[in-house]
Amino acid sequence: MSAAAEDTVERAVVLLSGGLDSATVLAAAIHAGFECHALSFRYGQRHDAELAAAARVAQALGAASHRVIGIELGSIGGSALTDADIPVPEAPTEGIPATYVPARNSVFLALGMGLAEVLDAGHLFIGVNAVDYSGYPDCRPEFIEAFQALASIATRRAVEGAPLALHAPLIRLTKAEIIRHGVALGVDYGLTVSCYQADETGAACGRCEACRLRRAGFEAAGLPDPTRYRD
Amino acid sequence: MSAAAEDTVERAVVLLSGGLDSATVLAAAIHAGFECHALSFRYGQRHDAELAAAARVAQALGAASHRVIGIELGSIGGSALTDADIPVPEAPTEGIPATYVPARNSVFLALGMGLAEVLDAGHLFIGVNAVDYSGYPDCRPEFIEAFQALASIATRRAVEGAPLALHAPLIRLTKAEIIRHGVALGVDYGLTVSCYQADETGAACGRCEACRLRRAGFEAAGLPDPTRYRD
Repeated sequence: MSAAAEDTVERAVVLLSGGLDSATVLAAAIHAGFECHALSFRYGQRHDAELAAAARVAQALGAASHRVIGIELGSIGGSALTDADIPVPEAPTEGIPATYVPARNSVFLALGMGLAEVLDAGHLFIGVNAVDYSGYPDCRPEFIEAFQALASIATRRAVEGAPLALHAPLIRLTKAEIIRHGVALGVDYGLTVSCYQADETGAACGRCEACRLRRAGFEAAGLPDPTRYRD
Repeated sequence: MSAAAEDTVERAVVLLSGGLDSATVLAAAIHAGFECHALSFRYGQRHDAELAAAARVAQALGAASHRVIGIELGSIGGSALTDADIPVPEAPTEGIPATYVPARNSVFLALGMGLAEVLDAGHLFIGVNAVDYSGYPDCRPEFIEAFQALASIATRRAVEGAPLALHAPLIRLTKAEIIRHGVALGVDYGLTVSCYQADETGAACGRCEACRLRRAGFEAAGLPDPTRYRD
């Protein structure tokens, strides 16, 4: 990471959900020498446990700052994650699951792009993953490529010849590879919350799709799972 | 507009700021036969006069619904429109002006894309304009093209083979052409607010760049300017 090794430290914005993937990305970006500004969103999630987890992770890993932007995404509805009338599925589903939040990553990346511009940060990191993922259309490599194309012209930086670089370093890794990578970087996954229906203390249900993917990841990695489960 | 002329009315989401351009777009989309759902944003603007104007315009033109989504964009700062410490310029400036809100149209379009998905709307309208515009990077035709490319893969609709169509019908029109178009469609521009520093009643300062562009537009169109100015 030659640029970061130079005198002037390069700034990055890192989207941080409080889950396993984005914690790994933050650790990797800090390890690579970036001054990392973490950004989380309060968008009508059913619980605040993941925001509390994001704050713990940002502090533990040494982020330079951590912001939470509120968005009234719940007023749009349409997802089991933001609409209390749609149940969180506990069995694998065909196609795009009910936990998909319409256009969520587009909204989050656009806000991350705005913060990057204000902070004069040239890099934006997101922990999307296209292997052990949940079938969301905005977690695919072609989505990331399209957003990079947008970022290359959408901002003041772009007009001035220094467009934002979008990084999705986990996109082709399995969950087990992500976990091994993070453990090697010193991430304490006990601080993170992946569960779609964690309780207020962050304890996981162990049954939803996010819990299943996470548990299977630790098993495949051959590493102990530090997740606190409710039952 | 063959699709809209058929039995099933096609739905569209129309971004509505309360200003002159987006009111014209809403009138045009309704005239074309779309069932139009207007979407406005409360993002830390200095005044609520433009949101009140958006509500008046949506009702007067016959939008099927009007939603306001709140975004804490002000916590990012970086613009004279959302940061009280940055003055609104009253003289023309070189380059991108202080009123540019970082990544604003990317954020708004991403949220409009999410609402379109929830409403099963196949069309998204925005009133950006690249002729008599304010030098914002996200008002250029290449920005709209890049966002269309993103919309073509970012959502459930896209995966299912019916990607959202993005429309920016004003992009190559002069302000005078926009005004003539809207007057022909019956838009009452007295309901709209363009001023960056309107008072709580919606009365305009007459001095900021938005006021100057608007006034010059009515003059060039040879039409009476219904704007209420404070002085």
